[in-house]
Amino acid sequence: MTIEDEFHFIDKIRQSKNRQPELIEGIGDDAALYRAKSDYLEIVCADTMTEGVHFLKDASSPKDIGYKAVAVNISDVAAMGGVPKYYLVTIAVPKTWSEEELVELYAGMDEIASTYKMDLIGGDTVSTSDKLVITVTVIGEVQQGKQRLRKDARPGDAVFVTGTIGDSAAGLQILLGNLSVHEENDSAFLVNRHKRPVPQVKAGQLMSSAERISLNDISDGLASELNELCEASCVKMVIEKDRVPLSDSLRSLHSEQLDEWILYGGEDFELVGTVPPAAFDSLQKKCSEEGISLTRIGHVEAGSSEVLLLHNGKKTKLEKSGYNHFK
Amino acid sequence: MTIEDEFHFIDKIRQSKNRQPELIEGIGDDAALYRAKSDYLEIVCADTMTEGVHFLKDASSPKDIGYKAVAVNISDVAAMGGVPKYYLVTIAVPKTWSEEELVELYAGMDEIASTYKMDLIGGDTVSTSDKLVITVTVIGEVQQGKQRLRKDARPGDAVFVTGTIGDSAAGLQILLGNLSVHEENDSAFLVNRHKRPVPQVKAGQLMSSAERISLNDISDGLASELNELCEASCVKMVIEKDRVPLSDSLRSLHSEQLDEWILYGGEDFELVGTVPPAAFDSLQKKCSEEGISLTRIGHVEAGSSEVLLLHNGKKTKLEKSGYNHFK
Repeated sequence: MTIEDEFHFIDKIRQSKNRQPELIEGIGDDAALYRAKSDYLEIVCADTMTEGVHFLKDASSPKDIGYKAVAVNISDVAAMGGVPKYYLVTIAVPKTWSEEELVELYAGMDEIASTYKMDLIGGDTVSTSDKLVITVTVIGEVQQGKQRLRKDARPGDAVFVTGTIGDSAAGLQILLGNLSVHEENDSAFLVNRHKRPVPQVKAGQLMSSAERISLNDISDGLASELNELCEASCVKMVIEKDRVPLSDSLRSLHSEQLDEWILYGGEDFELVGTVPPAAFDSLQKKCSEEGISLTRIGHVEAGSSEVLLLHNGKKTKLEKSGYNHFK
Repeated sequence: MTIEDEFHFIDKIRQSKNRQPELIEGIGDDAALYRAKSDYLEIVCADTMTEGVHFLKDASSPKDIGYKAVAVNISDVAAMGGVPKYYLVTIAVPKTWSEEELVELYAGMDEIASTYKMDLIGGDTVSTSDKLVITVTVIGEVQQGKQRLRKDARPGDAVFVTGTIGDSAAGLQILLGNLSVHEENDSAFLVNRHKRPVPQVKAGQLMSSAERISLNDISDGLASELNELCEASCVKMVIEKDRVPLSDSLRSLHSEQLDEWILYGGEDFELVGTVPPAAFDSLQKKCSEEGISLTRIGHVEAGSSEVLLLHNGKKTKLEKSGYNHFK
């Protein structure tokens, strides 16, 4: 893109008006300016998605790709107990992408951003030779003292997850043509869980209200995220495999790969965490009132950092890795 | 990179301690957390550099590339009159880059970041098939009311630049082997101006002290930046070509391309702006005391947005474009 093209393009993707009252300068100067609220902490994260690694142009529409690039970052803010407010987008664009497709990409980003009244406040558009690379930075806020960290799990805590686990990994296999599902509704549900993950912002805020909670979002896979909580908190976990909540669509597949998807699949963007057991029921009720399912899947024990999976009376160590994109 | 590799890599690039007292959580959780100062505005910007477009691996060391990726974003914060505080880095890495080179890349980033006591607070490391893509997000702050915007130029204002202009473009031509310079010192100076631009943070802060200033940094070329100031402020500018300050090294080249480098070259990362004429001398003196040269290169007039270049008694319209990386 030439400079003139870039100015023209920015005009196409610019919001017609700001959504956040604290935004002073959005796109258009050297940098964006906003006023932070007092008594709040600023939350910042950035994630990159690469064509051929995180998405395939043949398998997802530009709009879906844009939606997901923003959603995965909102999920990180949700996992801190915060709400998202602003985002910046940089894209390195090869010649294989048309301006129309890029406009669709940004439309997908705006679709999810507008749900949370987020403003697009900056970024960059450059050319590259081969594959599209998209980086999204999201800025959010959380009231001081209400942040939810990974290091706050304690022995005795209940381990929980929101929603259902493993759907996204199965959806990816359908997209890649490796899995065919008889029921069209099930297939559409699972693919949608992969393409359009819903960041658990509301759940994260409910968890902000509890006295102590450790929290993580499920991006790299349940096994990896549980291990991260254990490492950060210096505790051990015992997870009961049969308690991990599955969607009817996933369960109906009767696939041999089910365990792999559930434990290592990732990209469900549900929340996983721990809470003192006495507080679990009240938290579950609060979530339920908001239409969010919260399931207890195990407990925390004292001991060196590790995750044990309990199944048919046997415990096995759950290693961190297993997730490797399209490999 | 596998997940295990990524964790291992993050340990290598993690700072041993935080530099900013307001940082609550740096790298290690879902997102970073920091406390914003009251009476300040948050400044945010993000820029992407792509191998083969913004840098050539054969021509610059990983350390230089890292340094510059952070420097160009600090420059944007400086152009708002602010100071940089935090940065996030995402890289999409092809197999042609070794882990040692990536560690050097981050060392170059830390080299300039440590100068400003900036903390690396987040990011992402993913794989890609072809060329390295690096995105840096920088967060800074400026006292409320002291922000320097492009839209504040008024008829009668003096137009100024810091430092010297055109060095970086000439340095690039030397790097590409298109220009050979007899004097080794001149060659080294110009190449260094391209590889290691110095963001004008101190100058930006001095300009924050003046009553009214419009400000921009020179990334895309003097002509482009001047046009941006005119467009944002709805004014006309007359620039006297002979007043544009040149380094002795650049002047000694006697090249036919000198005008192109000065007007369209870009990447000098000096500041360009306007100030009421009565305030220019005092601002120049303040800058001089800090070892920063400030040169008046023209003035602002009422009229529709355009930039006129005055040379040998003739005025010609200075168009925005001319800069096109390595093309």
